[in-house]
Amino acid sequence: MENIHYEGSQIMTHHLSDKKVAFLTTDQYEDSELTSPWEAVEEAGATAHLLSPGGKKVEGKKGHSQEADLDVADANASDYDMLVLPGGTKNADHLRVEEAAVKFVKDFNAAGKPIAVICHGPWILTDADAVSGKKMTSYKSLKTDLKNAGAEWVDEEVVVDANLITSRTPDDLPAFNRELLKALEG
Amino acid sequence: MENIHYEGSQIMTHHLSDKKVAFLTTDQYEDSELTSPWEAVEEAGATAHLLSPGGKKVEGKKGHSQEADLDVADANASDYDMLVLPGGTKNADHLRVEEAAVKFVKDFNAAGKPIAVICHGPWILTDADAVSGKKMTSYKSLKTDLKNAGAEWVDEEVVVDANLITSRTPDDLPAFNRELLKALEG
Repeated sequence: MENIHYEGSQIMTHHLSDKKVAFLTTDQYEDSELTSPWEAVEEAGATAHLLSPGGKKVEGKKGHSQEADLDVADANASDYDMLVLPGGTKNADHLRVEEAAVKFVKDFNAAGKPIAVICHGPWILTDADAVSGKKMTSYKSLKTDLKNAGAEWVDEEVVVDANLITSRTPDDLPAFNRELLKALEG
Repeated sequence: MENIHYEGSQIMTHHLSDKKVAFLTTDQYEDSELTSPWEAVEEAGATAHLLSPGGKKVEGKKGHSQEADLDVADANASDYDMLVLPGGTKNADHLRVEEAAVKFVKDFNAAGKPIAVICHGPWILTDADAVSGKKMTSYKSLKTDLKNAGAEWVDEEVVVDANLITSRTPDDLPAFNRELLKALEG
């Protein structure tokens, strides 16, 4: 019985070992919105890569920092199964004016692959024309921007529509992680 | 001759003494985008009032702080001749979700009175439905949001169209102040 239970656990925790997930951020991200989904993805056995503009090490708002695995300009959407965009007002505001970052998001969306975005993260989706006609949520301050970009904005802890998985704040991380793992399985 | 010159200076510097200007901000504004137009307005002899959500003292990104003259919820657009909105990413992001601030901007725009806005300041204009059909500029990251709200966005140091005076960054402050004083004269 112990062996069977052990086998079961292995299957549960490492069942996504063939999947690769790209996390895209610059400085001043909301720390937990990078670290919490990162841990969820790695615990499920998937490979997580951190992409940043210029491939530079990034620093969060609250002290977390991490080396990038790749410059987003050198990354190919076709190499990944999912894209995760953490929030943080300044991170999201700075990332959306990085041409290589916008192009990567556009390519990911054009391929119909899942994009999980939280808090202020969705701004870059409007620059990448990736929200029109989609039901989604975000930090409340982006409501007007997302509606004007053609989204149907709702105030819910997590929304899954087409290839988008969206949440509002760090409080929503358990629901956000649950749904992004589901999408990665699918 | 000295008397005549003195009289002339008085007229030049205090010719707007019948005008009242409202500055609206919350914490984390770009300091010079409050202090520089504030000084220009006061040097022209006009009265400047600082409005904030809740009437609280506000603190800029770089150390400037100032007591508010009034809670924006208690202010009437009809008491002022012009509204100035400083930038700062977090200030602008936080201000746009304050209902009383959005209502004040809406009332100001409905009255057709001049609104001078710089950097990230214009976000609240989209929440107040105040940009559609207007030519304007802003910090570059807001380009998509303003275009999606119906504005014609251009990359110029200052743009005057209808009741809007807009600029991009602190570097544009000389042009921004010049045009807002012209609008206050008119």
